[in-house]
Amino acid sequence: VNDRLPGYLDPPASVGLAAVAQGAPLVHCMTNIVVAGFTANVLLAIGASPAMVENAVESADMAAGAGALLVNLGTLSDERGRAMPAAATAAHRAGTPWVLDPVAVGALAPRTSLARQLLESAPTIVRGNASEVISLAGVAGFAGRGVDSQAGSEVAVEPAKALAAEHSTVVAVSGAVDYVTDGHRVIDIPGGHGLMTKVTGVGCALGAVMAAYLGAGADPLSAAAGASLLFAAAGERSAGARTAAAAGTAAPGPGTFAVRFIDELAVLAAEAS
Amino acid sequence: VNDRLPGYLDPPASVGLAAVAQGAPLVHCMTNIVVAGFTANVLLAIGASPAMVENAVESADMAAGAGALLVNLGTLSDERGRAMPAAATAAHRAGTPWVLDPVAVGALAPRTSLARQLLESAPTIVRGNASEVISLAGVAGFAGRGVDSQAGSEVAVEPAKALAAEHSTVVAVSGAVDYVTDGHRVIDIPGGHGLMTKVTGVGCALGAVMAAYLGAGADPLSAAAGASLLFAAAGERSAGARTAAAAGTAAPGPGTFAVRFIDELAVLAAEAS
Amino acid sequence: VNDRLPGYLDPPASVGLAAVAQGAPLVHCMTNIVVAGFTANVLLAIGASPAMVENAVESADMAAGAGALLVNLGTLSDERGRAMPAAATAAHRAGTPWVLDPVAVGALAPRTSLARQLLESAPTIVRGNASEVISLAGVAGFAGRGVDSQAGSEVAVEPAKALAAEHSTVVAVSGAVDYVTDGHRVIDIPGGHGLMTKVTGVGCALGAVMAAYLGAGADPLSAAAGASLLFAAAGERSAGARTAAAAGTAAPGPGTFAVRFIDELAVLAAEAS
Repeated sequence: VNDRLPGYLDPPASVGLAAVAQGAPLVHCMTNIVVAGFTANVLLAIGASPAMVENAVESADMAAGAGALLVNLGTLSDERGRAMPAAATAAHRAGTPWVLDPVAVGALAPRTSLARQLLESAPTIVRGNASEVISLAGVAGFAGRGVDSQAGSEVAVEPAKALAAEHSTVVAVSGAVDYVTDGHRVIDIPGGHGLMTKVTGVGCALGAVMAAYLGAGADPLSAAAGASLLFAAAGERSAGARTAAAAGTAAPGPGTFAVRFIDELAVLAAEAS
Repeated sequence: VNDRLPGYLDPPASVGLAAVAQGAPLVHCMTNIVVAGFTANVLLAIGASPAMVENAVESADMAAGAGALLVNLGTLSDERGRAMPAAATAAHRAGTPWVLDPVAVGALAPRTSLARQLLESAPTIVRGNASEVISLAGVAGFAGRGVDSQAGSEVAVEPAKALAAEHSTVVAVSGAVDYVTDGHRVIDIPGGHGLMTKVTGVGCALGAVMAAYLGAGADPLSAAAGASLLFAAAGERSAGARTAAAAGTAAPGPGTFAVRFIDELAVLAAEAS
Repeated sequence: VNDRLPGYLDPPASVGLAAVAQGAPLVHCMTNIVVAGFTANVLLAIGASPAMVENAVESADMAAGAGALLVNLGTLSDERGRAMPAAATAAHRAGTPWVLDPVAVGALAPRTSLARQLLESAPTIVRGNASEVISLAGVAGFAGRGVDSQAGSEVAVEPAKALAAEHSTVVAVSGAVDYVTDGHRVIDIPGGHGLMTKVTGVGCALGAVMAAYLGAGADPLSAAAGASLLFAAAGERSAGARTAAAAGTAAPGPGTFAVRFIDELAVLAAEAS
């Protein structure tokens, strides 16, 4: 998967994207108030079917019946904090693949404790930035290295491998270079664009797209790598880094970039189908 | 109302839109975390005044004092689940017209039960997709037909008529063709564009605009039909289906489409005033 | 600060903006479901680091550790209603500067009571529209003047001065002309554009930007005035009122305006750095 030009969609990732567009998997998203709309629009752009259900009573049923589940810890509330373990447990029992996005784990103690509880329901993929992944892997001895989200993502590779191996999961570390590992293999995905860090929700939506790939039948490593590759390509195109028309022109502002990012995801999905 | 070119704004709908722009009705929106921002921007674009209040203590007061109320069941929480019946009851008592959008009713049992409870507070309009309307009408024998939201909206016409007649309300079914009925008359609104299903919140915002029309004094059938017609026109314009400048050009991506949709609503509101 | 061309960024405001871009202050935002995404994108555009944390358990820790705190009362919930006083108290004790945005205070009694409780934790800045500021100042005898948010903001100048003096804070009144006062000096900031009232969250995001300026070390009066000035400039540029290329062209629609507003903030931040 790794011997390609940076950011280009290689065939396996493209196959996954085509499967999403054709299968329209129902992705149950438990996510935060900041990015819920953007996440839904990202999923719609690639042909998936988002369903945002987050209360404790309905979430377990929805998780059991959905094609995939996303559990994102941003803007955690009492009620979401009760609903998420219920949904994760239901997904695990029903065989629904699911993605854990441990937003701000490490920085906030109650959230770290919840994330570790959720790991017991065997997430199919864990996606976070370097700081979050290192904090979650802390049980294996990597805590307290004082790495924040500005750190290069490569410092999280060994913690990610340990976390993946311990929990038999796939861990995806987002950063200037993304890393995806199942505890043995490590795939690096360079590319993307700095503007992706200037739009809220790009990382959160990436977790949702990984869930969509899983819901369309991708294996965990391909889902995590394929979604990361897709986002790198969409980010580059939206910034004008790869279009002939934009050669020599300045990068867009972050407002325009966010709009183009949705457009380019739809174009990439159409090209893959 | 029905003998016009598809999607064009006929005079009655245009009159309703002018009344919104002039009256700036206060629309109390109890809606979900995915679409709240988009809904507010849609209401502002046509000159209405959105007010999002959703806790149990304040909602009843706000509903009694507002020009109209929207109750949208998306991302239902414990607290919203308590606040919505209080607001609906207050609206009914105060004579505030209100719109029920039964998001995901049928798919989720607790929500179906809440929606049926809310029907007792006599919503002025019920707006949903075919699946939701058929589920709500289930008490009259239409449940279990296995219709999902991809079904053609025409399958929901008879259930919509039954629901409207039983509850003395107007029911609007959104789909490739929209249908609006008071239990006797049925108005069909063709037009719109497929991209409207690729942007989250278009249907939810339509319910809010129906509330704005009600708040500006429109009768229920005109409000439901006029808002549907407005969205069909804005959708077609945003997709470039009706502008000379866009003749022969490809449809925009869904990100650009969402931005244009807000722009076109403002243009249509200005044209109607 | 006041002897400049309307809307232009004078040196002090520009210095504050450069400090934000260089310091990337962590701004803990407790805000509402309608504007959370827009607020985060505004903060990212100027180089600040938004962190949306709103539950009662985590908010106090986050407020104590952040560079600044925003408490915005929109879409108030039971849980946010408990978390906000805890966060404000923690911010006050830790010396974290914080901004209170008393959304809809005056119109809703429970919220008015909460806002007055929050004043006891000594907000660094209070930002609202004329109606909200007059209502909050009501303890000093200005309540009940029947002023709504459509009123000219100048009617709130005396109430704002009284409120600022009584609570040793800075009060910012948003309107066609913005006013900022510490109880003694009054700075008026004309400029901006009417389209800023047609996009949801512009006022709410302004409060967040004031917090970012505080987090970057600005004194309260400079933070409130500088952020208001920044928004006036971004609003004018986004509407095309000051760009040569746009001379003679019509103003954009509100959808396009919102996208440009984010872009222009990023341009202004880059120009200031």
